[in-house]
Amino acid sequence: MTTLVFGHKSPDTDSTGSPIAWAWYLSEFIGIEATPVLLGEPNTEALWMLKKWDLPKPRIIMDVEAGQPVVIVDTNNPAELPAGINAADIRAIIDHHKLVGGLETVGPIDITIRPLACTATIMADLMGSALSTAPDGIKGAMLTCILSDTLAFRSPTTTDHDRVLAERLAADLSVDIPAYASEMFAAKSDVSAFSEAELLRMDSKEYEVEGTKFRVSVLETTSPEAILSRKDALMAAMPQVAREDDVTQVLLFVVDILAEQATLLVPDTLTKAVAEASFGVSVNGDSVVLPGVMSRKKQIIPALKL
Amino acid sequence: MTTLVFGHKSPDTDSTGSPIAWAWYLSEFIGIEATPVLLGEPNTEALWMLKKWDLPKPRIIMDVEAGQPVVIVDTNNPAELPAGINAADIRAIIDHHKLVGGLETVGPIDITIRPLACTATIMADLMGSALSTAPDGIKGAMLTCILSDTLAFRSPTTTDHDRVLAERLAADLSVDIPAYASEMFAAKSDVSAFSEAELLRMDSKEYEVEGTKFRVSVLETTSPEAILSRKDALMAAMPQVAREDDVTQVLLFVVDILAEQATLLVPDTLTKAVAEASFGVSVNGDSVVLPGVMSRKKQIIPALKL
Repeated sequence: MTTLVFGHKSPDTDSTGSPIAWAWYLSEFIGIEATPVLLGEPNTEALWMLKKWDLPKPRIIMDVEAGQPVVIVDTNNPAELPAGINAADIRAIIDHHKLVGGLETVGPIDITIRPLACTATIMADLMGSALSTAPDGIKGAMLTCILSDTLAFRSPTTTDHDRVLAERLAADLSVDIPAYASEMFAAKSDVSAFSEAELLRMDSKEYEVEGTKFRVSVLETTSPEAILSRKDALMAAMPQVAREDDVTQVLLFVVDILAEQATLLVPDTLTKAVAEASFGVSVNGDSVVLPGVMSRKKQIIPALKL
Repeated sequence: MTTLVFGHKSPDTDSTGSPIAWAWYLSEFIGIEATPVLLGEPNTEALWMLKKWDLPKPRIIMDVEAGQPVVIVDTNNPAELPAGINAADIRAIIDHHKLVGGLETVGPIDITIRPLACTATIMADLMGSALSTAPDGIKGAMLTCILSDTLAFRSPTTTDHDRVLAERLAADLSVDIPAYASEMFAAKSDVSAFSEAELLRMDSKEYEVEGTKFRVSVLETTSPEAILSRKDALMAAMPQVAREDDVTQVLLFVVDILAEQATLLVPDTLTKAVAEASFGVSVNGDSVVLPGVMSRKKQIIPALKL
């Protein structure tokens, strides 16, 4: 039975590209037949990456069967994985997020979690010299994952390790990083096809602040005006999304990649209280700019208070 | 503040030696001031190792304070760790057990879990060339950890990776493995000083079989008769230990390292049912021999049924 390799639900670039890279490595170097799959439709940046490097779009799966061999990458959170995950045969986990608990395995397996910006960087370390033999598509996917997760080295999650690897891959592929990243961010920023509810869920994680559950949504863009011009419609869509997703409110941070700041929409007094307690700002009106805030993992989640 | 490095409660050789080795590495190579500590009195084999390699016995701690930087080795199970563990500042986890869930971290940290026999083997990989510069005491501790966890390569948990490393360390230290292991196992087998209740808890893990909680205790010995001669007293002590530890029964497996078999004590019909369902044997009397069974992780826990 082929081993399925997947990232988290609502796949972003890292959760689309890293499974492709790891399935290649397992199949070509370790002798384990492996297939990358997706837990949902990838975002526009991930789709752009697939097209750019001529990679077939992985099949989308809804759940995994009991006993199915799987490798989980870019998450260790059961809430971001198929419902049947703990009955699957989890063979390995490669991730760069905090340990949340909840995943269990029958026996000891390979787990590698590192405080790096990107799953692909960890994979490069695990692959060692095998990486140099990878086809351009695999190297290109890994480069794109790193540039995506680091916002081309602007995010405070960026480590020297991520940067050095990305620069090595870019040199190898004759890719000019600034030009490539602009094109990539433009693809990510083209969200005209999505409804407000889709935008609120696109890159979001549930997080509980002192007993109150929030959907913490981040939209990284080089065209913040394209999203902020839909501010009223986005705020109007929040109550229904929150109700359907069983949270109290959606916190939407629109991250301006080039200006290196986030705008938080503030539709109600709860969100105003969170914004003021968490980021030391005073909110007037229905949004607030947070200078320097770019990373949910490093700057938003650790700051959230009520 | 110094970083505390520790293994699990009821420290065996790996949970005593690996913290010493890792604290050395962090202090000498990574520039992080680190101190090995123990979560209880080490077993007789671990004490023998400390004496053999002239290593100071680490301080025993009962709990950790909130915010205390810690590295956890040889377990990822909160039940085997101090009560305050999730409020500590967990910096890294190095382990070779199944993922049980329950540990949580504030941010992403270094987690390395590998399906190898011994934590020290994983550490050797992480240390890379630094290991060659380690003092003999560190190399000796790591060698002892591997020989202990693999029962000198007899346990089915042994991998080639563990064996190759142990042989390299032994050659480096001019240690004759069979002679050294005999001495080590004799130390482990000297349990005359322990009460029955202490023996039942010495190397034990709680495990739930279809809703019934057991304390699964393993005593590895080259002198099984020294323990089995106390069979009646051990069985008499089980009800109170079970009551105090909030489990239904204690399953005591006496592993004969040289004969490569385990003897399970069978004090009641519940244990008889577990023995017959799990190991396909029929039990007559108050004990049963299980040929080839040496590993709780690989052969006992996965087999347990009711």
